[in-house]
Amino acid sequence: MSSTDAASPPCARLCLIGLGLIGSSLARAAKETGAAAEIVAFDRDPAVRARAGELGLAERVPDRAVEAVAEADLVILCVPVGAMPGVAAEIAPALAEGAIVSDVGSVKEAVVAGVGPALDGRRAHFLPAHPVAGTEQSGPDAGFASLFRDRWCILTPPEDADPAALARLSAFWTRLGARLETMTPAHHDRVLAVTSHLPHLIAYTIVGTASDLEEVTQSEVMKFSAGGFRDFTRLAASDPTMWRDVFLNNRDATLELLGRFTEDLIALQRAIRWGEGDALFDSFARTRAIRRGILELGQDVSAPDFGRASAPSSDRKASPKPSGGAETG
Amino acid sequence: MSSTDAASPPCARLCLIGLGLIGSSLARAAKETGAAAEIVAFDRDPAVRARAGELGLAERVPDRAVEAVAEADLVILCVPVGAMPGVAAEIAPALAEGAIVSDVGSVKEAVVAGVGPALDGRRAHFLPAHPVAGTEQSGPDAGFASLFRDRWCILTPPEDADPAALARLSAFWTRLGARLETMTPAHHDRVLAVTSHLPHLIAYTIVGTASDLEEVTQSEVMKFSAGGFRDFTRLAASDPTMWRDVFLNNRDATLELLGRFTEDLIALQRAIRWGEGDALFDSFARTRAIRRGILELGQDVSAPDFGRASAPSSDRKASPKPSGGAETG
Repeated sequence: MSSTDAASPPCARLCLIGLGLIGSSLARAAKETGAAAEIVAFDRDPAVRARAGELGLAERVPDRAVEAVAEADLVILCVPVGAMPGVAAEIAPALAEGAIVSDVGSVKEAVVAGVGPALDGRRAHFLPAHPVAGTEQSGPDAGFASLFRDRWCILTPPEDADPAALARLSAFWTRLGARLETMTPAHHDRVLAVTSHLPHLIAYTIVGTASDLEEVTQSEVMKFSAGGFRDFTRLAASDPTMWRDVFLNNRDATLELLGRFTEDLIALQRAIRWGEGDALFDSFARTRAIRRGILELGQDVSAPDFGRASAPSSDRKASPKPSGGAETG
Repeated sequence: MSSTDAASPPCARLCLIGLGLIGSSLARAAKETGAAAEIVAFDRDPAVRARAGELGLAERVPDRAVEAVAEADLVILCVPVGAMPGVAAEIAPALAEGAIVSDVGSVKEAVVAGVGPALDGRRAHFLPAHPVAGTEQSGPDAGFASLFRDRWCILTPPEDADPAALARLSAFWTRLGARLETMTPAHHDRVLAVTSHLPHLIAYTIVGTASDLEEVTQSEVMKFSAGGFRDFTRLAASDPTMWRDVFLNNRDATLELLGRFTEDLIALQRAIRWGEGDALFDSFARTRAIRRGILELGQDVSAPDFGRASAPSSDRKASPKPSGGAETG
């Protein structure tokens, strides 16, 4: 990891701790782009380690985390946020002098507070990061090399971060195709509470509510889900452990935002109860601009219905294969 | 509309009132499948009528609704639910003896109550219907012929419906490729409140909440929307008039469901506040089964991230083109 030019790998020995969707995607991406000369990986689950060996995700998959981090110049924690402090404490004594320790956690203030003190700051550089990328699928088989390409990776380095170390980590992510953004941990947590955490909480809630109805069967809910509901089920199929840890560790920003959301929802509820059509129309008319902005920024596909209608039929299971849209409710 | 066999059109003269996404899709689908020998269409907006002429959506696009319905054996109201009673009263005197009047409204009890009495039951058969299909786009240019193929069309006929008329309407929708389901208007409204109306209300709310934040800019919300938020913006880009009318006309089912949703959300909020990890995990773990069921029923694509990652690049606008996923929050 001594160079940032395109020819040589920005990382000599990459160590990945945790081989779920993100960790296994990092392994594939680093190999494909030549971002690391060597990859060593660890997962606490023996079955995942065995699978990683079968998939050829790394040169070595030792049985202990401390073995995996030895002599690595870049160690990336790819475990749920709640597991990070324990992992950090475990690997700290085994880290190479001057190694960079980073992570991929969806929350940053809690990671900084929990991981930073567990590491010995004189030996290693702790530079938190969060690639805003992923799918609803989990595990070492779900990863793919292009996951980070053209996605944003948010860095939340401390003010006194070592510039050379930061340049090396940036070069690594750039090699994977990511675009970099820097902000404070606190601001990161507020931004992600809006763009990711609240949406997932809402999705989990509505799918749960729909599961508990007496008068509408689960079979009916699934059958007529193309009216909009199915979009929520995709988000609500994400990894429960990861999301439990997100909410436990981004409590304040989530609760603050939930308060605003509930207030806004109750205002709409009141407008429905009292038949205030103009208020409803005004609320519904002002939300189109954000969609346009997202499309202009290239942050989503502009094809109607996410382009599902034109998706290859091999992506659809079973028959019949309706894949209707959202608007006719 | 005298025959239901595959060779002859199930409808002799189809009249479409309203040429938005659904009406213009019906025109295209009826032409392509030969479901109607002749199509006459009307829209109250002169610009839409002119555009319909340019697009060749119908043989004729008269300037008055009463002209359009004359001698039609099937008239389908494709206007927002709130506009239906007025349209029905206007066309009632001009309907042909024995004509079928149907609709595509997302709400059925209010349509039955509002449209039924406006028609002269001795002259016309009123058979309400709701094709559960659509996209977030609107207007005569947004329609396409395959919109209803393999989608469900829910019929909510009165108990004393004329069997022959019902068979003719069923033959029409079957010809368009739709799959038919029959239920009472009240049950329809409860089912759709879950699978479509509440999801849209939630989506409008969360996009509105995100627009009003002080500490997180709209630019940041759009930039990092791939964490889950962008899925909501798609639903919230749907037609505001249509959705205003849905909520004004499916008030009771929506309010009842909203009460349950808020209760469930507040329970999760409380679990976050008090750090109850097990409760969060249990809630998040039970929602995956519904996603599996939807995929098994063929009601969505199983490709991660709705297959967006593999969507043709022409579907994406501008550059950079990140289209990341949902899981890494």
